[in-house]
Amino acid sequence: MPTLITNIGELTTNVAGLGDDPDDATGLIRDAAVLIDDGRVAWVGCADETPEDAARGEDEVVDAGGSAVVPGFVDSHTHLVFGGDRADEFEARMAGASYAAGGIRRTVRATREASDDELRARLARFVRELHAQGTTTFEIKTGYDLTVAGEARLARLARGVTDEVTYLGAHVVAPEYRADRDAYVDLVCGEMLAAVAPHARWIDVFCETGAFTPAETERILRAGVAAGLRPRLHGNQLGPGAGVQLAVALGAASVDHCTYLSDDDVAALAAGDTVATLLPGVEFSTRHPYPDARRLIDAGVTVALASDCNPGTSFTSSMPLMIALAVREMGMTVAEAVWAATAGGARALRRADVGHLGVGARADLVVLDAPTRTHLAYRPGVPLVHAVYRNGVSARG
Amino acid sequence: MPTLITNIGELTTNVAGLGDDPDDATGLIRDAAVLIDDGRVAWVGCADETPEDAARGEDEVVDAGGSAVVPGFVDSHTHLVFGGDRADEFEARMAGASYAAGGIRRTVRATREASDDELRARLARFVRELHAQGTTTFEIKTGYDLTVAGEARLARLARGVTDEVTYLGAHVVAPEYRADRDAYVDLVCGEMLAAVAPHARWIDVFCETGAFTPAETERILRAGVAAGLRPRLHGNQLGPGAGVQLAVALGAASVDHCTYLSDDDVAALAAGDTVATLLPGVEFSTRHPYPDARRLIDAGVTVALASDCNPGTSFTSSMPLMIALAVREMGMTVAEAVWAATAGGARALRRADVGHLGVGARADLVVLDAPTRTHLAYRPGVPLVHAVYRNGVSARG
Repeated sequence: MPTLITNIGELTTNVAGLGDDPDDATGLIRDAAVLIDDGRVAWVGCADETPEDAARGEDEVVDAGGSAVVPGFVDSHTHLVFGGDRADEFEARMAGASYAAGGIRRTVRATREASDDELRARLARFVRELHAQGTTTFEIKTGYDLTVAGEARLARLARGVTDEVTYLGAHVVAPEYRADRDAYVDLVCGEMLAAVAPHARWIDVFCETGAFTPAETERILRAGVAAGLRPRLHGNQLGPGAGVQLAVALGAASVDHCTYLSDDDVAALAAGDTVATLLPGVEFSTRHPYPDARRLIDAGVTVALASDCNPGTSFTSSMPLMIALAVREMGMTVAEAVWAATAGGARALRRADVGHLGVGARADLVVLDAPTRTHLAYRPGVPLVHAVYRNGVSARG
Repeated sequence: MPTLITNIGELTTNVAGLGDDPDDATGLIRDAAVLIDDGRVAWVGCADETPEDAARGEDEVVDAGGSAVVPGFVDSHTHLVFGGDRADEFEARMAGASYAAGGIRRTVRATREASDDELRARLARFVRELHAQGTTTFEIKTGYDLTVAGEARLARLARGVTDEVTYLGAHVVAPEYRADRDAYVDLVCGEMLAAVAPHARWIDVFCETGAFTPAETERILRAGVAAGLRPRLHGNQLGPGAGVQLAVALGAASVDHCTYLSDDDVAALAAGDTVATLLPGVEFSTRHPYPDARRLIDAGVTVALASDCNPGTSFTSSMPLMIALAVREMGMTVAEAVWAATAGGARALRRADVGHLGVGARADLVVLDAPTRTHLAYRPGVPLVHAVYRNGVSARG
């Protein structure tokens, strides 16, 4: 049965031209309604222009009570399949210790020790947590096992909860290969890739000092593309580097972090088709400087926001907090931040069916306990998700 | 019927000497249990030392599944009774406009226009929001009407949801008195005080440039004390000033904000009995510098954390976010921040019955969706409240 959600105080559609202001990229409609049929958006517009057949009383009608509605959040960067946690490392860092990529190896040990059932139970908990916070599409990376069978296991488990699985064998060099990193890169490009590719859509490399060099990164991504995966990468997080330029040159869907960028990096992103995905949870939880979103947006770069939820550097899954941090710390307007956390994430995953509420889109949306989307930044930390619709089906936030 | 909560992974009691480490001010017990009877803590300790009669099976037994439990949060500084919001002002500020205390007058207009029913409904919503986030005791200030009848109305409405009502007629000079501030101070100390005092426990003054001078502050607080109210005050928020020294000299329970402090201010706080209440939501939402909690704690000052939830400068009610900000931005350890958000708030309200879980305390506690309290800072923005007990009665978070 179709569902009509009406009396929406303001509806972010993310369809330019659909909004009250034709120049508004977020396509904001005040006093709006949306008709959902068969899990898709069947009609969207001003409530007082609702099609007659949608108001016949045969549909389920939901009164949003003047609340704001936004598309479901699209979290295009998480590492949700892992064992253990690193709360002690977090506390030590807050007390003054500095972050080093080596901490990943601790989670590798704990993940290898965790059974399938344990990891599945944790994933189920994380999925509930994401849904409760309005996230309706999310990516998950492997990268906390670093053996052939283990990476395939993580990809298979992740595939049980999302279509967007990323092979990240190249997270760090596996502990067994520290003396022979070339052999590890061979493994990542060879047997491991073959084992993981059937479960994954994406390939990713942590291109950073302490992880993988630009040459290694290029080789691994090209191998992944040859195996049918699509490239994305971690770059320019801890210092300047070639990651961004490489991402654009390889046509990666996204380059993630982007804290340390040269003018050439920004120009390359603006000229290319690669999304710059910013992960302010990392900067919050490591006290590193925040990336300059304003500079990127002003240069014409497409920006996404994601959580990077992982036990080392950003153990938050809160897209509303990412929006609040983007506004507080990164020079983004609320409209830009909400767009980046929805449509931006969808672009970073090359998904046309989510991240917006145009006709035909998946009916993934969040009814806020607030009259405007501004409240997502204006009320930081407050759970503002009143209800979440996924594929047109409602669950309370 | 008594309730035994057992299999608590770690229990923050805030009773020094009760914990595993006798020097730990938060009295942390691992593998703990707590027995609740008639709304109070009847026994607390290691789970394997649970008194036999508490394990007889006549009690309700709750298995916390290894989760962390903390005392209910005590939010000793809010402004929750008001009309309208100022989301537009927030957005303008994030885009570069600076905060001025005059914005309060906008909320005064909206509050005067709001009916009792409207304000009551909003208060009920806020109370649900606070409970869902683990806040079990909270203070509410008047100060958004600034007329005799109106301030009494706000105090009466606030009194409907909390015992901790604060008279803040001296929030700013009422718009009708801008040309004659002395007459307004007379009113605040006279007729308005007489009208509000029956509904209030506290008197507060916004002692700051643009609000009230130190001399006015002292006069108002002394009048309040003479009328049976207890003093607290806003001081040293926007710049250095006499607020802190005055608070200590008058024996105020708390001086709130404390961003700009001289060495003499810190020394006075350390020598006196006045709690320094820090409100990091304000700094988050105004981009002002955070107060230096480390400096205060190292000097021996008692520090509390509160939300300052108000529509102008901090529209968050999230005590978990205050803890995360205190750790990220203010140099506090997790243990100090959790203590400040519970026992610290209780001291700022001069309450011995809340903020801790010693025998006899009110059974106000939060079961977290996390194995340690560290997760409150380690997982910023994530709703981690699994269940809340108020007076020993449980409600899901």
